[in-house]
Amino acid sequence: MTKTLDALPNPLRLIPLADFPEVEPGADLPGLVRNAATRAGIDLAGMVLVVCQKIISKAEGRLVSLSEVAPSAEAREIAGAHGRDPRQVEVVLRESRRIVRRGNGVLITETHHGFVCANAGVDLSNAPGPEVAILLPEDPDASARRLFEALSSERGTTPIVISDTFGRPWREGLVDVALGSAGLAPIRDDRGSRDRAGRELLVTQPATADQLAAAAGLLMWKSAGIPVVAIEGLLIEGDGTVREALLREASTDLFR
Amino acid sequence: MTKTLDALPNPLRLIPLADFPEVEPGADLPGLVRNAATRAGIDLAGMVLVVCQKIISKAEGRLVSLSEVAPSAEAREIAGAHGRDPRQVEVVLRESRRIVRRGNGVLITETHHGFVCANAGVDLSNAPGPEVAILLPEDPDASARRLFEALSSERGTTPIVISDTFGRPWREGLVDVALGSAGLAPIRDDRGSRDRAGRELLVTQPATADQLAAAAGLLMWKSAGIPVVAIEGLLIEGDGTVREALLREASTDLFR
Repeated sequence: MTKTLDALPNPLRLIPLADFPEVEPGADLPGLVRNAATRAGIDLAGMVLVVCQKIISKAEGRLVSLSEVAPSAEAREIAGAHGRDPRQVEVVLRESRRIVRRGNGVLITETHHGFVCANAGVDLSNAPGPEVAILLPEDPDASARRLFEALSSERGTTPIVISDTFGRPWREGLVDVALGSAGLAPIRDDRGSRDRAGRELLVTQPATADQLAAAAGLLMWKSAGIPVVAIEGLLIEGDGTVREALLREASTDLFR
Repeated sequence: MTKTLDALPNPLRLIPLADFPEVEPGADLPGLVRNAATRAGIDLAGMVLVVCQKIISKAEGRLVSLSEVAPSAEAREIAGAHGRDPRQVEVVLRESRRIVRRGNGVLITETHHGFVCANAGVDLSNAPGPEVAILLPEDPDASARRLFEALSSERGTTPIVISDTFGRPWREGLVDVALGSAGLAPIRDDRGSRDRAGRELLVTQPATADQLAAAAGLLMWKSAGIPVVAIEGLLIEGDGTVREALLREASTDLFR
């Protein structure tokens, strides 16, 4: 398990894939990504792609028209207490396993996947219409896997991280996190390696997939419509899903 | 406030500054960084530097020899309950405003700065001796400011983010966050800008300083001793401190 002390990281390059077309339900996402990569003049073999959740959800048709949503009594109660649209709250509740916190006009829930975030990740910005809510992908790891398999070639794999911007406790602002991954280890396990003084590092498990999501977030300006960022130079190791590697068991969590 | 829809992000380059010497208390950090940049063949003007908290703390002499720590009764009680070194717990308590959670062998506290993290950020890995604890810098924003002023030149500024790796609720693994900043806005305020459909984006405040910290974390392998990562290509806007921009008021926090 002891890793070599000689290995050094390479510089990384982060390249935004601009001029991405509007994504419709049923869209050929691998084809759209390949075209955008060609326009940006990059070769996808060996690159990691961070893909904004929203284009995955749109391609998979994870859209709900609010006009067709009948709010439950619970949704109406919560919406009334927090000044929210009851139809939107109803959609949030349907996407949630349970409510983690309510307050300050904010609804923090645990989604059916196990993500803890505001509004179960349901979003209205960049939606195809003013009354349309975009849900998270049903299985973001599976979505990542499909894209990974479609884009990897004999010349090299193209690991995928699907990202979304989440708020977090204690700190202001939003940071992108990984919802799904394929083709790389979501956590880099440095346990068993040694620091420069030769002492074993006991707990050093960088969440690579989340670091990649956050890094790509630097280029995913919503106003610029950048849904995909290619990352060149990463040492690609392992394989795994966000659900298995990054979602903490509720039983070992101090904040649920 | 409406930002232009034409602006597009540039590609970013992340360059690790390797072969960094061991940092001693009183070290000339700006000089060490300049030398490392020269060795890496990079010009610091216009680059953002993410600097690992540990070399800041070492240069500032934020070290405590555990042999000189007399644990209080509270520290002994907590250490006994969680299988910890009572001297280390004592150091954690001295660095903390209050305990936020205890359990699973973990002590989550709020530091005097206002960071909520495990063990008040006190660390033993990469320490100059086996019985030495490294504390967080006393004022990471001020540390960042000093480095920013020393490294910026007439040819361009060199914004600084001081980072550390924190765990987080709900998710496994560690991600780097910003402890201090100078020379750039820690949050990118996109409120008032519009999405591609022309709808105003109500809440889009990416925490740029945290995204930068996480991105640099991809290259800060502890085993490789990379304490500084230079980031080229970022559109630098504004100025501000982590304390004012990123630390959430306890009164608006649902998890304290």
